[in-house]
Amino acid sequence: MSSSDIFIGETIGTAVLILLGGGVCAAVTLKRSKALNAGWLAITFGWGFAVLTGAYLAGGVSGAHLNPAVTLGLAIKGGTAWGDVPLYLGSQLLGAMIGAVLVYAVYYGQFHAHLNDPEIVGTKSTHEGMVDQTAAPKAGPVLGIFSTGPEIRNAVQNVLTEVIATVVLVLAILTQGLNNEGNGLGTLGALVTALVVVGIGLSLGGPTGYAINPVRDLGPRIVHAVLPLPNKGGSDWGYAWVPIVGPLIGGALAGGLYNLAFA
Amino acid sequence: MSSSDIFIGETIGTAVLILLGGGVCAAVTLKRSKALNAGWLAITFGWGFAVLTGAYLAGGVSGAHLNPAVTLGLAIKGGTAWGDVPLYLGSQLLGAMIGAVLVYAVYYGQFHAHLNDPEIVGTKSTHEGMVDQTAAPKAGPVLGIFSTGPEIRNAVQNVLTEVIATVVLVLAILTQGLNNEGNGLGTLGALVTALVVVGIGLSLGGPTGYAINPVRDLGPRIVHAVLPLPNKGGSDWGYAWVPIVGPLIGGALAGGLYNLAFA
Amino acid sequence: MSSSDIFIGETIGTAVLILLGGGVCAAVTLKRSKALNAGWLAITFGWGFAVLTGAYLAGGVSGAHLNPAVTLGLAIKGGTAWGDVPLYLGSQLLGAMIGAVLVYAVYYGQFHAHLNDPEIVGTKSTHEGMVDQTAAPKAGPVLGIFSTGPEIRNAVQNVLTEVIATVVLVLAILTQGLNNEGNGLGTLGALVTALVVVGIGLSLGGPTGYAINPVRDLGPRIVHAVLPLPNKGGSDWGYAWVPIVGPLIGGALAGGLYNLAFA
Amino acid sequence: MSSSDIFIGETIGTAVLILLGGGVCAAVTLKRSKALNAGWLAITFGWGFAVLTGAYLAGGVSGAHLNPAVTLGLAIKGGTAWGDVPLYLGSQLLGAMIGAVLVYAVYYGQFHAHLNDPEIVGTKSTHEGMVDQTAAPKAGPVLGIFSTGPEIRNAVQNVLTEVIATVVLVLAILTQGLNNEGNGLGTLGALVTALVVVGIGLSLGGPTGYAINPVRDLGPRIVHAVLPLPNKGGSDWGYAWVPIVGPLIGGALAGGLYNLAFA
Repeated sequence: MSSSDIFIGETIGTAVLILLGGGVCAAVTLKRSKALNAGWLAITFGWGFAVLTGAYLAGGVSGAHLNPAVTLGLAIKGGTAWGDVPLYLGSQLLGAMIGAVLVYAVYYGQFHAHLNDPEIVGTKSTHEGMVDQTAAPKAGPVLGIFSTGPEIRNAVQNVLTEVIATVVLVLAILTQGLNNEGNGLGTLGALVTALVVVGIGLSLGGPTGYAINPVRDLGPRIVHAVLPLPNKGGSDWGYAWVPIVGPLIGGALAGGLYNLAFA
Repeated sequence: MSSSDIFIGETIGTAVLILLGGGVCAAVTLKRSKALNAGWLAITFGWGFAVLTGAYLAGGVSGAHLNPAVTLGLAIKGGTAWGDVPLYLGSQLLGAMIGAVLVYAVYYGQFHAHLNDPEIVGTKSTHEGMVDQTAAPKAGPVLGIFSTGPEIRNAVQNVLTEVIATVVLVLAILTQGLNNEGNGLGTLGALVTALVVVGIGLSLGGPTGYAINPVRDLGPRIVHAVLPLPNKGGSDWGYAWVPIVGPLIGGALAGGLYNLAFA
Repeated sequence: MSSSDIFIGETIGTAVLILLGGGVCAAVTLKRSKALNAGWLAITFGWGFAVLTGAYLAGGVSGAHLNPAVTLGLAIKGGTAWGDVPLYLGSQLLGAMIGAVLVYAVYYGQFHAHLNDPEIVGTKSTHEGMVDQTAAPKAGPVLGIFSTGPEIRNAVQNVLTEVIATVVLVLAILTQGLNNEGNGLGTLGALVTALVVVGIGLSLGGPTGYAINPVRDLGPRIVHAVLPLPNKGGSDWGYAWVPIVGPLIGGALAGGLYNLAFA
Repeated sequence: MSSSDIFIGETIGTAVLILLGGGVCAAVTLKRSKALNAGWLAITFGWGFAVLTGAYLAGGVSGAHLNPAVTLGLAIKGGTAWGDVPLYLGSQLLGAMIGAVLVYAVYYGQFHAHLNDPEIVGTKSTHEGMVDQTAAPKAGPVLGIFSTGPEIRNAVQNVLTEVIATVVLVLAILTQGLNNEGNGLGTLGALVTALVVVGIGLSLGGPTGYAINPVRDLGPRIVHAVLPLPNKGGSDWGYAWVPIVGPLIGGALAGGLYNLAFA
């Protein structure tokens, strides 16, 4: 796989992943959206089909990691050269930032209508609009469209949740060759991975909003900090390390577990 | 592919697409329907499985474009001869109009019960029954079953939303050969495309109702204007150009991006 | 295909189809069910996965028609011998009756709790519990678990709705060989057919509850008439011909359309 | 298949199955979860994708039975050696217990917030939070996250429901070779099995919460009894035999029916 394939596939694939994933959060959160309050099933299927679209689009180009935890797991397994890892990660972060900007472009009118609404100003949101009763308000009213946040803020618990959820994701991806006769991330693999992500969201997303992907959280958080949104509130940088460290540990554990038990 | 294959596949396939897609909008909108108020998930899955059915049915005949933006993207990629484009587009528009008439036939009783209800007369609807608070009433109470409409009426924003959503759709279709070992729109391709459309609806449908297909909007709008529905209100022709121009730009951009980055 | 294969596959497959399809109607309708009021999406996905399970189970044995309209369409296409048709139809009707009895066995406690509830006695239900405001009460409070019924009772409209919905179903099944390289109802074909049925339910099920299969309606209606349920009310035999005649016309039209346009 | 493959595949696969399946029950039940009250569709899709993930992950290693009823059915069919059955069952039970502990780890904060809430203490829950009006309170407020329980407590009815639901599941798995050209539980088989499980949940889950798997119920029930949860209430051991005996009878019946009718 050439460097240019990696760059193109990962940048465009991750941009599409975050465009659709962030998009569904905007769709159910923002006033004047037709999907307002469409609920948790809409969010989890929306993120799953975001994975499907990104993976399908980039699968034949870069292998469609779209996630540093996946890249790390594959490198430990031996499926990706360590020398390619920095390019994968950089392309993924760039793609995630582009995707978040595109969410803003698609929902431009809704963002401004929402943030200029007197009822909204001064409130905060977590991932899907529930109120965090533990922490003092650290997150602005639309941060949940960009980044994840915990319902109960506790570093050890939150990291543990992200670790476990990411192990499930990456292990499913690493073992698919065993089922798939080595076809890698082909069409059927992309489909199953997408539905696994829906499952992880439904089942393990309750505590932290399932980042399970460092750039899925960091890229949009940077964009939130930079975008000239009115009354946007803080970007909750104090939590930003959790959805980076947790998924990376999870990806590494999945790679190790694969080598130990499945190889 | 013969002209008659193109005509048959695109006309019947697009008719089925619009019959099922318009059908789900009728199902959740009209009084005396068992699916009344079934919600945004029902609409987005309904449109996705409409694509699945149309694409599955016509895939082996005409390649199942069912959408001028897809035809344009494929022509730019080189997968469809430019000389066939007019026949594709005409057949798609004809099919879309037939599909909209069939929606009326299936929901005949519901349309008349709904439009003769004193509570309904004089109101307007957007795509899924939400009220557009910005614009003066330009759309009648059942236009949302036929055509799309924006929640916030702003030409630049609305076009931009349709462009971005269409780029995602067409790029996913253009790249599927890279995953699918050149099988074109086979069964699995139809399935994934359908779920991509569910994803686009969930994630990017909030602002404009995701036409992402010029004939999906224009064909049924013409039928709305012509059908002898009581108290049907206007057909909002002032917006009609947006879901034509936006998707065509999106299809062309996707074709260009494919040639630049993926070819 | 031997007669015994046809008998076994169609009887067991249709029994499973109706067990799961009738089961989801019981699940969302009956008091003391965990799925009470789970909504229209639950009903439509439940019926779709009922088709998937029955078709998957019987596909390799009898071809998994499970529906006289499908058998008729295939016979017209030439894929099924006319001499086998009576055995297909008889096995399907027997299977549908077995399935309906099994629904009663699974939900025995719920049926009796529901029908002995003073609030329920004397009411009537349509397919998913909505009230038919047009007709005088012809259907008892649990008939909607067994058979379909219209929201607006009009023979011509109701037949037309069933015809159109069945054409879509049968045409999708008849054309799948064009996509599937002649694999018949393999695993992927069963999956797509199931999702097409979800789509037909979401999009075209609003007026009549989408029988689209004569035995799906007649078999359970006979069982409803015979079962010793307390306070069960009438079996609405006056409507029983509609979901037989409509789907048979639809299956024949789809077969003719296939031969005319796709063969 | 080596003993170590069976042990690894079944233990890890069943752990993932219960982690995701128990996880979705925690997600919709516990206070301070983002998925609180996400509904029956979320539960049924969550369990289905739990099966998908576990089966996909373990399919190429141990064949991914993940369920003693499946192992029993396959042994009767002749697809699994009787001598391997004890190892399958032991590994599945171990995996189920690990999975239940992982659910506790993921939702640690939510469990404690929920169980220390004065409104919750002293109440009881069934599978998805509905109140069992028949029996005296035998189950604590979070037992439904671990084990199943009936809405109407009647041993014969409850066993019968589990038998019928398990026959459907195991028969679908046993017959898949007829469709799948002997590929066993490959990717597509895992996907269809998962959707069959969604269907069984939607259609047959209403009375008992569809254990359809002895270790899915017993493993987490043991963990519930052992875990140091505050105010957790009883583990309802009086019901524990039903979701063991019912599914085992169902698995055996499916194996016999397969040999009689399909072999």
